[in-house]
Amino acid sequence: MFMPESRYQKIAIIGAGSVATHLGLAITAAGHHISCVFNRSSEKGRILAEKLDTQFTTNLKTLDSPDLIIIAVTDDAIPQVVEQLSNCFFSVVHTSGTVSKEVLKDVGGDYGVFYPLQTFSIGKDIDFAKVPICIEGSDSSFSMNLEELAKSLSHTVCQLDEQKRRILHLAGVFACNFSNWLYVIANDILKKNDIPFELLLPLIQETAMKIQSKTPLDAQTGPARRGDISTIEQHLFLIQNDPQLLNIYKTFTDNILNSYSHQYSTSNFLSKGGD
Amino acid sequence: MFMPESRYQKIAIIGAGSVATHLGLAITAAGHHISCVFNRSSEKGRILAEKLDTQFTTNLKTLDSPDLIIIAVTDDAIPQVVEQLSNCFFSVVHTSGTVSKEVLKDVGGDYGVFYPLQTFSIGKDIDFAKVPICIEGSDSSFSMNLEELAKSLSHTVCQLDEQKRRILHLAGVFACNFSNWLYVIANDILKKNDIPFELLLPLIQETAMKIQSKTPLDAQTGPARRGDISTIEQHLFLIQNDPQLLNIYKTFTDNILNSYSHQYSTSNFLSKGGD
Repeated sequence: MFMPESRYQKIAIIGAGSVATHLGLAITAAGHHISCVFNRSSEKGRILAEKLDTQFTTNLKTLDSPDLIIIAVTDDAIPQVVEQLSNCFFSVVHTSGTVSKEVLKDVGGDYGVFYPLQTFSIGKDIDFAKVPICIEGSDSSFSMNLEELAKSLSHTVCQLDEQKRRILHLAGVFACNFSNWLYVIANDILKKNDIPFELLLPLIQETAMKIQSKTPLDAQTGPARRGDISTIEQHLFLIQNDPQLLNIYKTFTDNILNSYSHQYSTSNFLSKGGD
Repeated sequence: MFMPESRYQKIAIIGAGSVATHLGLAITAAGHHISCVFNRSSEKGRILAEKLDTQFTTNLKTLDSPDLIIIAVTDDAIPQVVEQLSNCFFSVVHTSGTVSKEVLKDVGGDYGVFYPLQTFSIGKDIDFAKVPICIEGSDSSFSMNLEELAKSLSHTVCQLDEQKRRILHLAGVFACNFSNWLYVIANDILKKNDIPFELLLPLIQETAMKIQSKTPLDAQTGPARRGDISTIEQHLFLIQNDPQLLNIYKTFTDNILNSYSHQYSTSNFLSKGGD
């Protein structure tokens, strides 16, 4: 039975990637006990087990009655893990933003989701206290247990049902994965013109910082926000031969222009033949 | 004549918006002397002049032979200012990322660009030493003077010609204005579903921080990077009734999938009728 009031639980971690690593380190730092790391790759698993000062196994059948199993593997690997744990009657959570908790039902114990909303890289420290953790338990008592564990790791813990967790994940894809893709594009544009990307880094950081104190709508700046048509047309001219850039530039610019009630549309520019 | 070796120049600032304010404060903090603030709106101008401990004027004709005039107004207001300064023979720069330095020629003295690449808000402090300043002078001697002034304010100073400055500005629009628009979208998605936007803030910040130490291409994460089709189709299903979101989601996802050599395209999903 999973007893979060104790700081010396037997928590087993399945996986040895970046989520397993950062979560494992945070759990250990909070004073809980990780009894075992399981991973298919013995090298990665051994490295994480060493970091967490615990034992390592490649055989799930050897798990010694853990209080809680945390499955921190890629979404598509979760079913295979569950298959091996079927009817073990352990308490189990996964860490995915998109997978239903119900896939864990066949383990036979309490089950739920323990989703840390952050982008983790091995070798890059994270202040886990600032990582929001979204939880969902198979019943309210297990949810409370998960909440207690989460609160021992982070200042921001919330109970989110499946649908809301998926929507949060989707919003994260827009705000973060797609933003990073815009950094890729900016890097490409600069590289092609022998301009160092480093010049943009302070602006990128400040843009992400600004919305700590302003709503994104209030924080919006730039030519489309101002309705600065001559700059927009200068930009359209610069990228006129790159359909991919043009498509993104026009989509965002028209959305922003429209949102701030400017009458111009980038299709006006095209109809002039790009002059 | 503009003498940057002295810390007691007579610098006049035209404008009283966020660029004028932050630049003025940085110039004063670096030990230079601002002799005057000009602004059409007397209230904003007076506030800035007070902050900079200098005099304020609404009449450009009263400028008392400044060593350098910094025009920090919106792009479309620059020509009006230049008209009033015509044949004054002062050294003059503007702070725009997109306007040619040639618009300043009629003032009759040295002219150039002094472009601080950052998003400024009045009332929000900025560490100006970390703001890249891009400069361009009408001749190499004036460029050197501007470089010296810029280096007294910031660790990152570069000489950039007009074309490169415009490209840098364009890249900034992609990396920052459009990223912020993705934050707007994420905020909207969450708001409609009663999920607090604050949950996303640590992820947004870490995404912007990650590219300090990794290239954006290496830092890319998410379902499209992994080729995680079931998550992508889950997302497409969630936003199927919102053409604006669908358009952005598909554009980015297909670009990312393609860039990492995954064979899937989001048009596959549509052809299945959104099931």
